Amino acid sequence: MHINDLETPVVLIDQEILDRNLRRMAEYCASHQIALRPHTKTHKIPEIARLQVKYGSTGITVAKVSEAEVMASAGLSDIVVVYPVWGESKWRRLAELARRIRIAVTMDSLSVAEGISRAAKRQVSKSEFDWNSILACGGAAFLLIPRRSRLPGKSWTFPTFAGKASPSIQGTSWETRQHASGYAFGKLPLRLPFELLDSAGIPYPVVSGGNTPTAFQSHLFHGVNEIRPGTYVFNDRNTVDAESASYADCAATVLTTVVSTSVPNRAMIDAGSKTLAADRLESGARQHFGYVLDHPEFTLDGLSEEHGHLSIPGNSSIRVGNRLRIIPNHICPCINLHDSVYLVSGDQVVERWKVAARGMVI
Amino acid sequence: MHINDLETPVVLIDQEILDRNLRRMAEYCASHQIALRPHTKTHKIPEIARLQVKYGSTGITVAKVSEAEVMASAGLSDIVVVYPVWGESKWRRLAELARRIRIAVTMDSLSVAEGISRAAKRQVSKSEFDWNSILACGGAAFLLIPRRSRLPGKSWTFPTFAGKASPSIQGTSWETRQHASGYAFGKLPLRLPFELLDSAGIPYPVVSGGNTPTAFQSHLFHGVNEIRPGTYVFNDRNTVDAESASYADCAATVLTTVVSTSVPNRAMIDAGSKTLAADRLESGARQHFGYVLDHPEFTLDGLSEEHGHLSIPGNSSIRVGNRLRIIPNHICPCINLHDSVYLVSGDQVVERWKVAARGMVI
Repeated sequence: MHINDLETPVVLIDQEILDRNLRRMAEYCASHQIALRPHTKTHKIPEIARLQVKYGSTGITVAKVSEAEVMASAGLSDIVVVYPVWGESKWRRLAELARRIRIAVTMDSLSVAEGISRAAKRQVSKSEFDWNSILACGGAAFLLIPRRSRLPGKSWTFPTFAGKASPSIQGTSWETRQHASGYAFGKLPLRLPFELLDSAGIPYPVVSGGNTPTAFQSHLFHGVNEIRPGTYVFNDRNTVDAESASYADCAATVLTTVVSTSVPNRAMIDAGSKTLAADRLESGARQHFGYVLDHPEFTLDGLSEEHGHLSIPGNSSIRVGNRLRIIPNHICPCINLHDSVYLVSGDQVVERWKVAARGMVI
Repeated sequence: MHINDLETPVVLIDQEILDRNLRRMAEYCASHQIALRPHTKTHKIPEIARLQVKYGSTGITVAKVSEAEVMASAGLSDIVVVYPVWGESKWRRLAELARRIRIAVTMDSLSVAEGISRAAKRQVSKSEFDWNSILACGGAAFLLIPRRSRLPGKSWTFPTFAGKASPSIQGTSWETRQHASGYAFGKLPLRLPFELLDSAGIPYPVVSGGNTPTAFQSHLFHGVNEIRPGTYVFNDRNTVDAESASYADCAATVLTTVVSTSVPNRAMIDAGSKTLAADRLESGARQHFGYVLDHPEFTLDGLSEEHGHLSIPGNSSIRVGNRLRIIPNHICPCINLHDSVYLVSGDQVVERWKVAARGMVI
């Protein structure tokens, strides 16, 4: 099927670009002995998660318990939930998962640690599962150290550091800040938690961090032996702005149709905030909601719910019915708006993939 | 079931507030002999659409063909699609709908009009359906007038004006501008299209417009005899900012849990942009992503995908595990992120409603 036989708006995933992005990151990590545990929040698609494992990822990362359940059901067997999971029912669900697969959780408070530990003690038989190995603690490891003896579960290890590497800080220090994975050191050199852990005699076999913009600099950060980038599978306008990809590396586009040209120098497309997501550029620019592929002279300067508002040059030959492909500012929330996406090769549709973990916010 | 037995994040709809909002708008319209055709893009829930009709709406409004299909399947029988529908398959779907229910479409180009007309001629038997009555034309009625004789379908009527009433312009003129429903006059006094239609001898039995912020001033606009507000069913922070509702009129809230307080003066909640939607306030304010009910001292000043970032006073007693209710900036894209919502009465869960038209962007 030709992509022009698809109704719009619809998300297309370019198979060749996706494959190249997956291979490039896997090869970088392999060449630096850094484990790759990609964050699947970007795609929420089990088929892509399985490709990531096939290319050498040690496992995957998710944000929510319900995402972990979807991925576990699809055969993923080593999952880290980078989220401070709270609530009896979620702890039960985590412990249920822990009976089937290797699962780890990050956290930054004693209360979350205690809750998970209690649920694990109740539900997971020690003989069948080494709960000890599934608990990973994020930024507040050092907060928990003095208190871990109070935890009702088995003793703890603190193998994971969450953090957002800042490209402006090189070498042995690492700026971590409050961000999507929710673990906040403020600004601390990475050595401080290391020293705290060392002085407490606590091993930290995994030092994990990194996101897509700085992924290929991960080997410059002292001690980091795992990274969890997400966006690299598709890339997006933010990634291009951050100079960690080019538009030719953007695997995901929204195919859209021009539906109105009745106002001079304007065109309306059938993709608005309910298709592209309303995220502003990371740079804070207020008037760019996506990049129009092959038409750098067009500006997508506004979104209403079901329309994108394009500014176009007066001499443009664009007409109602023309199709355009848009690279979203932020691909993760865009994918989350769609029940399915189409894998394409050139202009041919290869396969329809269900976004199985879409909407899994629990 | 108590709302605290629900896992978070989750959307709650307060039954009493919803009912009051529905009644108030219906009573206003009835008292001014203005027809009410609410836009269901806000809720996307057939149960609410049926309540709107029960309270006297003449029919409903949708943005996309697939939304019309969902609503028609749920028993709604009079639907206007305020969108310039483009494409053979969508025109076929429209014509199929037209065999079952009364459906109208707005548009602003001859090419869309011709396409729909062709599809109707092919698929809808004249004896069984008065296609003539189902075509409504938006802002560009006057563009089409000289050309309508070329249309292959039956002759046309132009009953609908789409537009966003500006509260700053009162009386007989009406500022319409490019907006969510996509029909653009630029700034024209409403009289101009009226005069064009009059001089062409074309009747315009329905003059339709209005959105929630100006809905209760609709009787001040000359000629308007139908309005299509959407947000009034729930209201949201934008509606409150526009002074057309108070927080007590906001029926939809996101119930969320505090998951981290490890940084002084900050709290993280489990609702981010994939739960609340990333829409900025209409005012353009860059650091307010929702209003925390009962805690005016908290500021939701950032969203990552699965976290909301709250600034809280130093003396706050907020703890991990506490629950908060958030009124989103813009409720329409928020609802569109959720597979279902819970109808509640006080703190008791009444019913679970599926957001049946969620994600219907085709």
